[in-house]
Amino acid sequence: MEHNSGYFKSSKHYFSLRVYYSDTDAGGVVYHSNYLNFAEHARSEMIDLLGGKQKHRMDQAGAGFVVSSIDIKYRKPGFLDDILTVETAVIKCERFTLNLQQNILRDQEILAEMKIRIAYISLENLRPLPLPEPWKTRLMELSSPQ
Amino acid sequence: MEHNSGYFKSSKHYFSLRVYYSDTDAGGVVYHSNYLNFAEHARSEMIDLLGGKQKHRMDQAGAGFVVSSIDIKYRKPGFLDDILTVETAVIKCERFTLNLQQNILRDQEILAEMKIRIAYISLENLRPLPLPEPWKTRLMELSSPQ
Amino acid sequence: MEHNSGYFKSSKHYFSLRVYYSDTDAGGVVYHSNYLNFAEHARSEMIDLLGGKQKHRMDQAGAGFVVSSIDIKYRKPGFLDDILTVETAVIKCERFTLNLQQNILRDQEILAEMKIRIAYISLENLRPLPLPEPWKTRLMELSSPQ
Amino acid sequence: MEHNSGYFKSSKHYFSLRVYYSDTDAGGVVYHSNYLNFAEHARSEMIDLLGGKQKHRMDQAGAGFVVSSIDIKYRKPGFLDDILTVETAVIKCERFTLNLQQNILRDQEILAEMKIRIAYISLENLRPLPLPEPWKTRLMELSSPQ
Repeated sequence: MEHNSGYFKSSKHYFSLRVYYSDTDAGGVVYHSNYLNFAEHARSEMIDLLGGKQKHRMDQAGAGFVVSSIDIKYRKPGFLDDILTVETAVIKCERFTLNLQQNILRDQEILAEMKIRIAYISLENLRPLPLPEPWKTRLMELSSPQ
Repeated sequence: MEHNSGYFKSSKHYFSLRVYYSDTDAGGVVYHSNYLNFAEHARSEMIDLLGGKQKHRMDQAGAGFVVSSIDIKYRKPGFLDDILTVETAVIKCERFTLNLQQNILRDQEILAEMKIRIAYISLENLRPLPLPEPWKTRLMELSSPQ
Repeated sequence: MEHNSGYFKSSKHYFSLRVYYSDTDAGGVVYHSNYLNFAEHARSEMIDLLGGKQKHRMDQAGAGFVVSSIDIKYRKPGFLDDILTVETAVIKCERFTLNLQQNILRDQEILAEMKIRIAYISLENLRPLPLPEPWKTRLMELSSPQ
Repeated sequence: MEHNSGYFKSSKHYFSLRVYYSDTDAGGVVYHSNYLNFAEHARSEMIDLLGGKQKHRMDQAGAGFVVSSIDIKYRKPGFLDDILTVETAVIKCERFTLNLQQNILRDQEILAEMKIRIAYISLENLRPLPLPEPWKTRLMELSSPQ
């Protein structure tokens, strides 16, 4: 169907989403941990655009991405019905891991800035695995200086 | 930005979404309560397409939608990376309430069927309020037999 | 540690919990699908008290509970910081399935009433499996008239 | 009812919780952003033990806590049915803000380590507000070296 996975522009990936009731809390703003979910959704769409299915690799190779660390600064609150954009830049792509910068924007305003480290692992023994193709080559390209 | 609110066809609203890690559980399938979230997201997009902003009315009139009841049958599991479609039909639109049928589909398969009753209320005293325009007229049209 | 799994009284299971920011939405109330999560948490604690670990059976037998249907009526809203109690009654326990009534209470007030049908299945082929011991015998006892 | 808010020991707060299906994902582990929710739940219980209700202050003073930044390292995965403990230490308590270290433990193992900065603000104009009593005095005591 007409699902939208975002797009690449100048080596960055952009994915937009709407803030729903389920994303907010009684303070009237987006609940703070949901920015991590938004960032995961954007990564999943980006990986999907790079080709090769996460689900397929999970089923075939018992492998998947896990988050190693996140450093997030909250700048401004998001609100119900906002259309937000997750901007994802590949900072560094190594054999087993990936460093990303993911910013959450409302128009030109930055709501949250995240530095995220991701590892590719066996979901059975939790050991690191080399990033598979076609993801690796594409991610290396995205991380090269423009 | 390029956010996708779905579309109307033959008086039904269709909204598609991807299943992310955050929607799944350790059983390997979509966690059961998340179908209610998917349905809420589809209603929010539908309401947005009808014109008039939920957030605006919440701020101005202190009013919003609440769910009165849900009857959901789970037919088949959804999986990570599935593209699902929420099909929303307006069964009945009354002065204060709305009855909807919302089905969650993967291609032609029905994963879940929901009957939902929604009320429009004051968020301050929780009393029912008449459905406001432009929503009411449009929802009445959607509920009339084709 | 000092985790609290609730208790049985007159054949019903009682489990209490606090409403956190993460459970609420911008309407200032508990987000409607979270009552299903509260009910799942109570079922998990009840099953744990009956003996035999869900996680263990998932790992050993590749089996787990799935929800077949839910019928929920929302009576009153829950708020941040409320202490709620989930009251679970076993209505019927059959070979492969379980029918429960789960009510969400704040003191004596009913916030939500749920009828839930649960099936025990293979997580690999999604086929029904007989409810295993020690759960079955205990659940049969709980469902017999007092 | 018998809700458990955890306890203080040697100036730290300890709160334990069970990992439910709703906390896990299709990788078979706790979904990464849910550690932030666990940490929020522990803070809410700690604040409640210090006296004075979050909900009451939100209603009366239109004020609440917001998260300014989080730095989280993921060490080991959590699994369904685990009993986890959130250990909270007050690193620094200032006029408007609070710095905490929150670790998520399974027995003696550290699953995740978090440094969190919290601000107390007006939920109307989002401006910083001085931390109110009785929280401030108690939090100052907890942050003083033992």
